[in-house]
Amino acid sequence: MLTLEKIQAAKLKVAPFIYETPVIRLQGLDNLLHCNVSIKAENMQKTNSFKLRGALNKLLSMSVEQLQHGVVAASSGNHGKGVAFAAQLLNIPATIVLPDSAPSVKVEGIRALGARIVQCTLAERHQVTEALSLEHGYAIVHPYDDYDIMAGQGTVALEILEQFSQVSAIVVPIGGGGLLSGVATAVKSLAPHIKIIGVEPAVVPRYSKSIQVGKRLLLAEQQSLADALLTLQPGERNFPIVEKLVDDIVSVDEASILYGMKTLLLEGKILAEPSSAIGIGAALRGNLPITKNDHVCFLISGGNIGLNPLQRL
Amino acid sequence: MLTLEKIQAAKLKVAPFIYETPVIRLQGLDNLLHCNVSIKAENMQKTNSFKLRGALNKLLSMSVEQLQHGVVAASSGNHGKGVAFAAQLLNIPATIVLPDSAPSVKVEGIRALGARIVQCTLAERHQVTEALSLEHGYAIVHPYDDYDIMAGQGTVALEILEQFSQVSAIVVPIGGGGLLSGVATAVKSLAPHIKIIGVEPAVVPRYSKSIQVGKRLLLAEQQSLADALLTLQPGERNFPIVEKLVDDIVSVDEASILYGMKTLLLEGKILAEPSSAIGIGAALRGNLPITKNDHVCFLISGGNIGLNPLQRL
Repeated sequence: MLTLEKIQAAKLKVAPFIYETPVIRLQGLDNLLHCNVSIKAENMQKTNSFKLRGALNKLLSMSVEQLQHGVVAASSGNHGKGVAFAAQLLNIPATIVLPDSAPSVKVEGIRALGARIVQCTLAERHQVTEALSLEHGYAIVHPYDDYDIMAGQGTVALEILEQFSQVSAIVVPIGGGGLLSGVATAVKSLAPHIKIIGVEPAVVPRYSKSIQVGKRLLLAEQQSLADALLTLQPGERNFPIVEKLVDDIVSVDEASILYGMKTLLLEGKILAEPSSAIGIGAALRGNLPITKNDHVCFLISGGNIGLNPLQRL
Repeated sequence: MLTLEKIQAAKLKVAPFIYETPVIRLQGLDNLLHCNVSIKAENMQKTNSFKLRGALNKLLSMSVEQLQHGVVAASSGNHGKGVAFAAQLLNIPATIVLPDSAPSVKVEGIRALGARIVQCTLAERHQVTEALSLEHGYAIVHPYDDYDIMAGQGTVALEILEQFSQVSAIVVPIGGGGLLSGVATAVKSLAPHIKIIGVEPAVVPRYSKSIQVGKRLLLAEQQSLADALLTLQPGERNFPIVEKLVDDIVSVDEASILYGMKTLLLEGKILAEPSSAIGIGAALRGNLPITKNDHVCFLISGGNIGLNPLQRL
């Protein structure tokens, strides 16, 4: 089970190794986004994504026996970079299974942290991970469907509550749901009046659809600018938490994701990856259940984007 | 004369119309820049530059008679945008004299604020401004050589001191010296232990050279990535203040300016114009008189940069 206490314990465990990233007020975006805009800048986190929090909490919670042969993780990139960082810290080998489509800045970032990289199709990544685990005895570090991972990701919400007392809504990008379930558990335990809004790509609306029918649907593989949010099915442990605690799920089309990223960069002066600007895109279109008086914290989950994709803007 | 009291009075005057921009801690840059890195994000200011502060203070200090025929200002772009904003607020006409080389994002920004634009060569801009003033009765709003302008720019230092109690050094880009003289006057009055470091392009080292010989040298016209810092001679009213109060002047070559901007964007996740990243470039090369223990505030003076120059990175 995921509890506030687990998230608070995770915070003590990971705090020495991460940055307390800033909450930044972006007044210049207020009129465009129809609310009082702040961001939690996890694009400025070590490894440039919140994923480090969960990876560290997981590896620091595992036994020496579990870790003795090393770890393996399937990832679109950011979780892999977090696991690679945590494995380097503990001096154990890490293998990261990435889709062929992973952005080169993520591949290079993982390699620079000393991890081995295996690439395959997006659909194959969990099978390849399991095969590597069986063959070499590596412990699997799941990107989201794991309570220690969720507890680690939830630590970002404890920071938001400390740094930004006025916050009335938090907008969270959804892949598998690890970040969203961690944030929702922390916030609804401590400050249940704060609205939690999940945002996912319209091309893979697995949470919107699954909540409609009350069970975890598996969608077909799609392409999206939001390369970090392509998970095709809600996590087994994440789904009930999201279903119970999250106020709204909003899906965002590709043009709005791009518009969000450009606006955050050119008007907000903040560089984020497309997956992280998805909430900005939704707000630009007036598609979030927020009002002009809301103090909204957009969780900018990552900033792993290179010059090449920027030059294609 | 420029005094702390004038800067404090300017703050009361301009505060209702500007943003209190954030001071942002960028821990991810500490190792690269060899100090504890924070920025004062005036790239997030209304009009996307600190220049609004001086322009507002100047126009709000002028009499109805002085303003009756409108204003004219020579500018590389940011001062013009500030003047255009202030003129729009007061409902008076503004004419902005820009060099032919002004970045299109600055030209468009000024036009969008309803000002008339006149373009000429960089060297001609002050003569053209004077001719327009004579012909039409426009009041000249000088970009830096004016105590009301300097007092307005100095308000940014009052904010830094309030927001960032640990600060031990402030790094300030230099064009004509309006920002630097305002910041130095405020800081040396209130907290003289804080080091003030000016940074200027190595291709036009007018302050370094002028301080060496003890008088205001006029240098030859040059090109630089730092389009906002091309002034060829220290301001008459600015020079004695800078000479007396500023601890160090550092000049920065073109490659380091570009490196600073790229690093601030890709590692720091902050978009600034090249002129504003000049201090980051100097720190990357180890050329600032700071130590690892210093808490350095880099004044990011502006963020008026479009997608095209970004795509040439």
